[in-house]
Amino acid sequence: MSDQTQSGTPAPLTVTVGQYLATRLVQLGAHHVFGLPGDFNLSLLDQMATVEGFTWVGSTNELNAAYAADGYARLRRGIGALVTTYGVGELSAINGVAGSYSEDVPVVQITGMPTTGARAAGTHLHHTLIDGDYDHFLRAYREVTATATVVRAQTATRDIDAALMTALRESKPVYLGIPSDVATAPVHAANLRTPLVAASSDRAELERFTAMLAATVARHDQVSMLVGSQVHRCSLEAIVRQIADHDGVYIASQNMSKAVLDESHPASLGTYMGAFTRVEEARVAVDDAPLLVLAGTVMSDFLTGFFTQRFDEDAAIELGLTTARIADTTFYGVRLEDSLRALHTVLGQTPRTGVLPVGHPSVAVAAAPVAGELLDHEFFWAAIQGWLRPGTTVIADAGTSFYGALDLVLPDESDLLGQAVWSSIGYTIPATLGACLALPWRRSVLFVGDGAAQLTVQELATILHRGFTPVIFLLNNDGYTVERKIQSPSAVYQDITPWDWTLIPAAFGAADRVVTASVSSQDELTEALALAHETTEKAVLIEVRLPELDAPRLLTVLTEGIAAAAAKR
Amino acid sequence: MSDQTQSGTPAPLTVTVGQYLATRLVQLGAHHVFGLPGDFNLSLLDQMATVEGFTWVGSTNELNAAYAADGYARLRRGIGALVTTYGVGELSAINGVAGSYSEDVPVVQITGMPTTGARAAGTHLHHTLIDGDYDHFLRAYREVTATATVVRAQTATRDIDAALMTALRESKPVYLGIPSDVATAPVHAANLRTPLVAASSDRAELERFTAMLAATVARHDQVSMLVGSQVHRCSLEAIVRQIADHDGVYIASQNMSKAVLDESHPASLGTYMGAFTRVEEARVAVDDAPLLVLAGTVMSDFLTGFFTQRFDEDAAIELGLTTARIADTTFYGVRLEDSLRALHTVLGQTPRTGVLPVGHPSVAVAAAPVAGELLDHEFFWAAIQGWLRPGTTVIADAGTSFYGALDLVLPDESDLLGQAVWSSIGYTIPATLGACLALPWRRSVLFVGDGAAQLTVQELATILHRGFTPVIFLLNNDGYTVERKIQSPSAVYQDITPWDWTLIPAAFGAADRVVTASVSSQDELTEALALAHETTEKAVLIEVRLPELDAPRLLTVLTEGIAAAAAKR
Repeated sequence: MSDQTQSGTPAPLTVTVGQYLATRLVQLGAHHVFGLPGDFNLSLLDQMATVEGFTWVGSTNELNAAYAADGYARLRRGIGALVTTYGVGELSAINGVAGSYSEDVPVVQITGMPTTGARAAGTHLHHTLIDGDYDHFLRAYREVTATATVVRAQTATRDIDAALMTALRESKPVYLGIPSDVATAPVHAANLRTPLVAASSDRAELERFTAMLAATVARHDQVSMLVGSQVHRCSLEAIVRQIADHDGVYIASQNMSKAVLDESHPASLGTYMGAFTRVEEARVAVDDAPLLVLAGTVMSDFLTGFFTQRFDEDAAIELGLTTARIADTTFYGVRLEDSLRALHTVLGQTPRTGVLPVGHPSVAVAAAPVAGELLDHEFFWAAIQGWLRPGTTVIADAGTSFYGALDLVLPDESDLLGQAVWSSIGYTIPATLGACLALPWRRSVLFVGDGAAQLTVQELATILHRGFTPVIFLLNNDGYTVERKIQSPSAVYQDITPWDWTLIPAAFGAADRVVTASVSSQDELTEALALAHETTEKAVLIEVRLPELDAPRLLTVLTEGIAAAAAKR
Repeated sequence: MSDQTQSGTPAPLTVTVGQYLATRLVQLGAHHVFGLPGDFNLSLLDQMATVEGFTWVGSTNELNAAYAADGYARLRRGIGALVTTYGVGELSAINGVAGSYSEDVPVVQITGMPTTGARAAGTHLHHTLIDGDYDHFLRAYREVTATATVVRAQTATRDIDAALMTALRESKPVYLGIPSDVATAPVHAANLRTPLVAASSDRAELERFTAMLAATVARHDQVSMLVGSQVHRCSLEAIVRQIADHDGVYIASQNMSKAVLDESHPASLGTYMGAFTRVEEARVAVDDAPLLVLAGTVMSDFLTGFFTQRFDEDAAIELGLTTARIADTTFYGVRLEDSLRALHTVLGQTPRTGVLPVGHPSVAVAAAPVAGELLDHEFFWAAIQGWLRPGTTVIADAGTSFYGALDLVLPDESDLLGQAVWSSIGYTIPATLGACLALPWRRSVLFVGDGAAQLTVQELATILHRGFTPVIFLLNNDGYTVERKIQSPSAVYQDITPWDWTLIPAAFGAADRVVTASVSSQDELTEALALAHETTEKAVLIEVRLPELDAPRLLTVLTEGIAAAAAKR
């Protein structure tokens, strides 16, 4: 593993550490890197910018950069990356990176640091705590990443490759601190000829697993599979679809994995949320499944309807990112893509009869709009249901937006992007930037509440100035409705300042790149939706004025659940 | 220290933990508490809101809440506080709290947490990393606070008092995690009868120190004192003024303590920054002082002109927050207020002759404006110099704004608020909110660059909707000019999106609360400044268009220093 030149052989090409890192990121599909400049990362950015395929996306602040990198990684089913400066920059981003950890998104947080010498000497530089300890922020990052390293010049290529491999293997964020002298240090470029790939499964373990899986599946006429977000992270939706085409199979998704299988597919059970599952038949098909496969699932409060799942997790087959389990037997080193492929193969080996499609939730159909009749969530979401087109990236912020979108039946080839575990409000505006950059050919449709939008509104400027054309529904209900539904609805802390949302794009210098509308009645919404369809060359911002205490059906039942759970705990 | 009721005595009044905490904060002068609601802090906020004197200030995001609490604490010379929710909220605030640590500001970060039971069980709740470990964020906060504690119901009053005492004693931020069940738990109210006060000095040590100080001072005809920001934190400006009135004394300030002594005072040396000190005579009066007293100073790169101070720190008298030192002898437990008072007393005991006032830097005087002549920094800051009135809170963001303001000769009874150590861009918009709430009778004048303002712009909505009337100079130079001055001026990462700044207040729904102007020529600026004087019932937002690569004098010499230091390290 030595990087030293061997005498007698021609010296291999060298690159700088910054170039090495940027090349690795490009190889892994992270063509866009988010962040802000600062004096400790300028040398690093200058080096990275020389690499072909690397595109810098200047963010308005570091939290937004982290959210954007996270959204990019989710939509690309790959690596996202951001570069921040030391201290002030990286700490601003840490909530976004923690969200990536919580929801298994491989984001690389790259910090441009003071020089190796300053760090060793403990020099009292700006952006430090003036106590000589340069590792405070590294240690903070250790809490929210799979690995956090300060790169040394002598071992730079190994340090970088090891961190990126960890991100790939564990689908978790990693942290790389690059001192400014290290950023420009030369390293051998030889490794770059071999792109990094995630480790493959342990062959013997996979064989043992496959044999036991075959025997188990053979004993059952019907298999229900609950699919979670790790399937998206590993880009395994196609295998899920292949599995769904076998006879005798039902597929449900967790709510962060909505539409992992087109919801029109006969095998689709829609979204499973324990007792809050919309269609009772679908709930039973999971809870009482003769054989249940959990694929890349996470059992958190919001994903299980506050732990109201009734299936026996211990008796199920569990396919995790790097481990598979059949009841009591665990197989280490069996990766999700291989265990899912094995399931596909095994299902093909034993013929079984088809299952009866489970009744899908009735698709809400908007009533004809009544002129002047004020909007409520029921009308709004029914209208959206009829308006959405296939091939849409639906993005929904925590709160009313996410739970409204969750009750939609998504059109085919569509994705739902949102944080059902970390649930950080404001995530989605920057994540929309990431989504637009990741899949520019798909239209992004964002639903975000007024409270959430205020946290991260400035990233809208980046979206618009880059010429992206999402449709943004700004659900204006005068404050934090989701919190009002949980407790103390009229407390002063539920209020926010009232903004004139349709003026925001002009204030951000992008009036000519967007069409805006503000709607409060049914007919106004209908008109605005038609306008949004017609407007393909510009972004569309629609402020939707909704009653302060109205909420989508699912949010109402869930917040009752939160309140009940809080009372019980 | 038991809180248990003693049988036979009437039960004392009880309050909830949330009420106890809010009462303590109000007693310490933190009448305004910043933050955002979230489901894990609603019970805490409901309890805190019942306490008389407690006022909730809803922030647009948590980083802004931390900045606002920090600005509030600096201007109040006391405690600032914010309440966030678990995980998503507290992590968003951590950069602001780290800045408070770096610059010795006692801010209390209060996190509403999941219940004690959920934490003990490791329940996989939202806002967690889904690994059962509820202490990740507590440990992250340990890196940037003087103490970080999760409050237990059984020891709540002790836990809270201990943390607040630490903040008072060390002038550093502290972290309190309050599980939602603990927030509503009853505790005895008896302690509340005794407000918390910072510990006093060790009397014997103080006496020993005073004796040695008297002997040392008696040997010198002239004393130079360099004053740092800890003097502000402890609200000791009045003693500094008393010391300045003694014969034989010169007073210089570090740049975060500009105008700690009115700059018109005969003893004032202005701001000392090592080799970058503007007036050579003032630099010599510090570097070659027969007797130098360092009072509450911090020796960081930006505060020392990149470590170009030439005085002998080891031979100086150093008065720290809780420790005093005379050359080689250190006196522990001697607090800054007592060591400064001792210096005042000692100076009164030995008569010495007056010093000759050192030549003050020539006050820049604006030339008569030339109609249509484009603005540059030189004209702008000279015009500001003539426009500022006594009794102003001058607030300046890192970069062009701070170094422009630093070269001003501040009018009497004015303060400069800015981060010369932590230097987190965007700090000042939320800090202006804190300043307005802390000292509503003083006008705040904010200087902030366009790059910096984009990071935290939304807090302007809070400032305007609360009816505050600061004057805001938005220095628009199309990007990160301070970084351009350091390296790669035309790199793509130096660019930001161009906003229409004068539309921002209208977009934030506050058009009627503000007067706006956009100026690019000398006569336009002169007119806008006159307008700002006349407008006292509304805020004033003046966009000042400046050339992309122009910078204030001091920034130009300093960025050359940064670049040189970076090359050397």
